[in-house]
Amino acid sequence: MEPDLAFAVWSGERQHRIEDVLRRALAFNDGAPPRLLEAMRYAVLDGGKRVRALLAYATGELTGAAPAVVDGPAAAVEMIHAYSLAHDDLPSMDNDALRRGKPSCHVAFGEAIALLAGDTLQAQAFAVLAAVPMRDVGAACMLLARAAGACGMAGGQAVDLAHVGTRMSVADLETMHLMKTGALIRAAIRLGADCGRALGADEEAALDAFARAAGLAFQVVDDVLDVEGSAATLGKTAGKDAAQAKPTYVTLLGVAEAKRHAAALNEEAHRALAEFGGAARRLHEIADWITRRTH
Amino acid sequence: MEPDLAFAVWSGERQHRIEDVLRRALAFNDGAPPRLLEAMRYAVLDGGKRVRALLAYATGELTGAAPAVVDGPAAAVEMIHAYSLAHDDLPSMDNDALRRGKPSCHVAFGEAIALLAGDTLQAQAFAVLAAVPMRDVGAACMLLARAAGACGMAGGQAVDLAHVGTRMSVADLETMHLMKTGALIRAAIRLGADCGRALGADEEAALDAFARAAGLAFQVVDDVLDVEGSAATLGKTAGKDAAQAKPTYVTLLGVAEAKRHAAALNEEAHRALAEFGGAARRLHEIADWITRRTH
Repeated sequence: MEPDLAFAVWSGERQHRIEDVLRRALAFNDGAPPRLLEAMRYAVLDGGKRVRALLAYATGELTGAAPAVVDGPAAAVEMIHAYSLAHDDLPSMDNDALRRGKPSCHVAFGEAIALLAGDTLQAQAFAVLAAVPMRDVGAACMLLARAAGACGMAGGQAVDLAHVGTRMSVADLETMHLMKTGALIRAAIRLGADCGRALGADEEAALDAFARAAGLAFQVVDDVLDVEGSAATLGKTAGKDAAQAKPTYVTLLGVAEAKRHAAALNEEAHRALAEFGGAARRLHEIADWITRRTH
Repeated sequence: MEPDLAFAVWSGERQHRIEDVLRRALAFNDGAPPRLLEAMRYAVLDGGKRVRALLAYATGELTGAAPAVVDGPAAAVEMIHAYSLAHDDLPSMDNDALRRGKPSCHVAFGEAIALLAGDTLQAQAFAVLAAVPMRDVGAACMLLARAAGACGMAGGQAVDLAHVGTRMSVADLETMHLMKTGALIRAAIRLGADCGRALGADEEAALDAFARAAGLAFQVVDDVLDVEGSAATLGKTAGKDAAQAKPTYVTLLGVAEAKRHAAALNEEAHRALAEFGGAARRLHEIADWITRRTH
């Protein structure tokens, strides 16, 4: 751990690092069709804020794990996230043509290859995670699988699609986001931590509470940015929630109240970390960064 | 092991068993959207010959594994196979409306849910496998991930799509099928075996050689049945290879030569098992069954 490093430097270094890790992992695919590999690279490389990877590195530091061990879980959660974006953008899902400032994967490669690139990124996430020298790699694969699956990320996407054009309560919206983005964020946090010393039950509960609050804050800010941002700053289509008649924190609460809600969730995230004192500095910084970001 | 049980009884019992195992695994999804769960059940339950599960049970018997341990790998490979069918049938891929005698998943549930059901079945395959009390569950997850991914099953589907309307050599066709169906068949065989005593290098090589020959035989027979079978006996669209201008063993070799090729591959599969003597009886029987099936 480098406690004196400014957050921008720390996060920039890790964003650079995860890019290398992902690039190397994808190169380990002898015999794969070149066009499919190209689509996998397109979907996962050179893009995104790497929030999930940063969370894994931060909790790895918290439990004294070597960054080289955390590389695996960090890459795995980023691959799962990238696969979900490639699939969510497909015409039969959210039908979005712009992602991370570039044409969506299916616009660039066609629907069939984008679908398969998502499928193979999911598989490779487990290949990468299964190779990590952790105490209990089976538990790690189980945790990631459940976070990605029907009770987690992909299940949340199904709930999301089912509510297009309907009015949800704030509680239902929260449940949906806890599945759709919260589950993978929690997995990133837990998998990074599990690369180091074993956590006590109180510490696990604290990290879960942090994950819940920070994950929801991330989503509320996303909803606000969808209204206030532009495609140029967001790198994805702005105003698409309204265009798709999706229930959001902004449609339910209004912009001002949604911003207050994000700030309250950020405070909740900070409070959840009290257990760890100064050792959780990077997690505090990530929560603030999530809440104050402009894209 | 019940050495005197006729193959039809043995396989029927295990087909029944895997159905129960899959049903129970899918029930372990509290909080998942009901419609998504229904689509997952639709895609994976009550269908198919369960070739992959039978292979896992057979190699588990070969290495002295308890069937209760093999249940996990057997369910995992069937979930991966079912997810691949749900995705392959989508309009952007093979666009097939009939599967296992029923409307394809996307016809019954819509494209978005069929896509997500495939995604969540893949995730759940790893959740199920990761829970198996095997010697090295990390190695097992890695093996399944690589078999399912860009160098295996999903990569083979990409190769298949890229060759629609083109003429492939028999060697290229073989490479494609070794990825598209062979990789998962090999994984089923290895994962079942890995539930019992450790294999020697010679035994591993023998099982791989068996997997290669039996997997290819399966595919050649599939190509013949696509020409000679009807939708009623196949439970899927007959003649679709020709309709989709896909290169097959029949288009390359003709029906008679394709049948001879299947018989030769079956012989090769039998020879590969010499190492095991009578202990591999079920694998011999499965190879014959694969080659002589009518659907």
